[in-house]
Amino acid sequence: MLLSIMVLAFMFGGESVTMDKPDPYHDATGRFSHDQLVSLVREHGSPLYVYDGDLINKKYDLFYGAYKKHFDDVQVLYAVKANTNMAIMSLLKQRGAGAECISGGEITTALKLGYEGKQILFTSSAKTTAELELAISQGVVINLDSMEDLAHAGEVAARLQKKAHISFRINPDVDPHTHKHIATGHKFSKFGILLEDDQIMHAYKLAHEHPWLEVWGLHSHIGSQITDWTPFQQNARVLVHFIARLKDELGIQLKFIDLGGGLGIPYHDGQKTASPEDVAQNVAEVLRPAFEKLGYMPSIWLEPGRFLVGDSGILLATVISVKDTPYTDFINVDTGFNHLVRPILYEAYHRIRVLNRKDDIRLFDVAGNICETGDILGHNRLLPTPKAGDMIAILDAGAYGYTMASMYNSFALPAEILVRGDQATLIRERKTLDDLLEGQIIPADLAPQ
Amino acid sequence: MLLSIMVLAFMFGGESVTMDKPDPYHDATGRFSHDQLVSLVREHGSPLYVYDGDLINKKYDLFYGAYKKHFDDVQVLYAVKANTNMAIMSLLKQRGAGAECISGGEITTALKLGYEGKQILFTSSAKTTAELELAISQGVVINLDSMEDLAHAGEVAARLQKKAHISFRINPDVDPHTHKHIATGHKFSKFGILLEDDQIMHAYKLAHEHPWLEVWGLHSHIGSQITDWTPFQQNARVLVHFIARLKDELGIQLKFIDLGGGLGIPYHDGQKTASPEDVAQNVAEVLRPAFEKLGYMPSIWLEPGRFLVGDSGILLATVISVKDTPYTDFINVDTGFNHLVRPILYEAYHRIRVLNRKDDIRLFDVAGNICETGDILGHNRLLPTPKAGDMIAILDAGAYGYTMASMYNSFALPAEILVRGDQATLIRERKTLDDLLEGQIIPADLAPQ
Repeated sequence: MLLSIMVLAFMFGGESVTMDKPDPYHDATGRFSHDQLVSLVREHGSPLYVYDGDLINKKYDLFYGAYKKHFDDVQVLYAVKANTNMAIMSLLKQRGAGAECISGGEITTALKLGYEGKQILFTSSAKTTAELELAISQGVVINLDSMEDLAHAGEVAARLQKKAHISFRINPDVDPHTHKHIATGHKFSKFGILLEDDQIMHAYKLAHEHPWLEVWGLHSHIGSQITDWTPFQQNARVLVHFIARLKDELGIQLKFIDLGGGLGIPYHDGQKTASPEDVAQNVAEVLRPAFEKLGYMPSIWLEPGRFLVGDSGILLATVISVKDTPYTDFINVDTGFNHLVRPILYEAYHRIRVLNRKDDIRLFDVAGNICETGDILGHNRLLPTPKAGDMIAILDAGAYGYTMASMYNSFALPAEILVRGDQATLIRERKTLDDLLEGQIIPADLAPQ
Repeated sequence: MLLSIMVLAFMFGGESVTMDKPDPYHDATGRFSHDQLVSLVREHGSPLYVYDGDLINKKYDLFYGAYKKHFDDVQVLYAVKANTNMAIMSLLKQRGAGAECISGGEITTALKLGYEGKQILFTSSAKTTAELELAISQGVVINLDSMEDLAHAGEVAARLQKKAHISFRINPDVDPHTHKHIATGHKFSKFGILLEDDQIMHAYKLAHEHPWLEVWGLHSHIGSQITDWTPFQQNARVLVHFIARLKDELGIQLKFIDLGGGLGIPYHDGQKTASPEDVAQNVAEVLRPAFEKLGYMPSIWLEPGRFLVGDSGILLATVISVKDTPYTDFINVDTGFNHLVRPILYEAYHRIRVLNRKDDIRLFDVAGNICETGDILGHNRLLPTPKAGDMIAILDAGAYGYTMASMYNSFALPAEILVRGDQATLIRERKTLDDLLEGQIIPADLAPQ
């Protein structure tokens, strides 16, 4: 199926980039050369995750700097669920980041890496007693999700005789115009206490009066992969109104306002997304005058995840075959939704490059090796025709890539490589089948003879 | 939000079962008692996968028996991707099953458990050279997906000087009326060689003439979770026509015809699905007269996965809190799409029972603990109101549950328990955070001081 490139380029617009960039994977990762990637795969196996540590540092500075321009006291908490590799968490800690954690596992990892308790925010809609015990005993800030969560944390703190620093996650009912699975701040969401519900004032009152709870902040996170600054400003408007009420009605001054995360990255060639500067400035326009009126200035906490690490990562894979059918031409590769679930789970688009090829550009489906029809990593992509053994790079796989990976179909999990300057370092070993078999116990009467 | 139960029962039809069954989880698992489940969770932690081994045996006998009634030579190949726990794979092997495998990892697991090479079928649209070497050297039957796959397998067999037993996966373009992600035999699918494409006769001719390939069979799999027998019969019609052509035009007699898997199970209370007897009889009506006309009788191979193990498994979880909002009431639990991805990935419905409660039946969303709005395990369910610490059971989680699980959000993977007769046996230990941290390497300059 070889159609005219001109026609296809017209039909599929932004898809035609592989034609006019001789080194097309270069644009996303900063500086990986083909030889470097080939030698990494030769050493560490295919598929392989590769991260650009310098880009992560640059994105952190960009993000932090954007807010620092408008606010004196800014704390960036890295949303570690985006990529919990300890080397990447350490890199961001060294830069000054705190950690936004979802589970006891994430908190434990952050503590192991030297994050201080007060730099960690624990946000979850279903905290277990064990998780609360861990968090409170380590001085982690507890972001409460409901009245039940408040009561539970209060009980645990009282029992441990240790003051818990808390905030409430409020649900501002703001529509972030993103995928339904990742919009978190609308009124049907499982997260937070609705601002429209008078419960929230009552919750702050109870916490304020509780002998073992100390009110530190207010949290709100409206969603993920938000590409425009307006929902962030809308959220800020809602928050300042509420902060004024907290002071007026309950006499509460907050240590911090956590504006959440959610700033998106461009996944398409040429896609425009709001910059941190755009968002910071438009949010500051609302917050600064409100703070002046309020008479105090809380710290601004922010929780970027994808923005810091998303575009730093590529998933390298090897072409197994090119299969032409009367309806679709497939590039079959040796990875799939076991290693990158975003395309099948969120209908997410990831740019895909065929490395070191330029010719015979055609329309392909890039098919994963998982035994499900839905395992298509890229649909209708204009790409040069590869040969078996060639490599592809799936771009922008630094966030929600490895962290969501599984061993479905009994494939090994890839190794992870961090590149800084000229140095490529192995930061996670490739897993093997033994990792999957470990801990399994075959009852004696079923064991092979 | 407490509405009239009568109204809701009317509105949500099949959802009202928890009201009239005093022991409502019993219907799905055969015989687990509340005390037994509580004590298993106490011993092995929450969440927990529990499988009913007796039910798996019963389902195997039912399935095998249904086909055996119509055909002399029947081989059931368990589609191990549904549940690769080695104890369950061993149980089915002991019953007489072969294994349908997708990857080198699955083949290696099956060989470890004593499955013979000739009882294993290797089906993948992206076989690596290493996987082909393993399969051919062990006498595994290779199910070829394309002309490229044929050439690749031929090369490897010639190099190893070892005859490879092969079949071709044909794509019959039959619509199985199932979810788009799991319909595999339509013309836009990545799988198989289209029957309408004359390539397929050419492929058989090449394989037949190849010195290192031996044509054993023909394979076709039209999809997953198919609940009606008509697509199976339609597929059989397509196949017999083609088998006659193979004999007439190429003089090929097949050792086996693999009719694939895909037979569904009822996920809803009261749902009617085709039985293996229904399917076997309607398929036999087409195949038997065709075989008589053909003058030979190939072996019938079948690949059930979900049918054998799906309803045998429950995922037990603990209630963290009940959270009422003005719009939705949530039951927050200590598991999520990290452990059972089917609801979010396929919009799949799993019945959920609140154990040991009967009162205050209301409409709930059962929310997982993953930090995504989409992590809802059950939407709009009529359930008795639990208390924190109560247990829920998510039914029919035996297939595509644990095998698709991840450590997203750094939660541990659950243990797995196999119950046979009165005996509950641990068949996989609970994973810990250490399993996730293992193999990670922090570069020296980033390591905590």
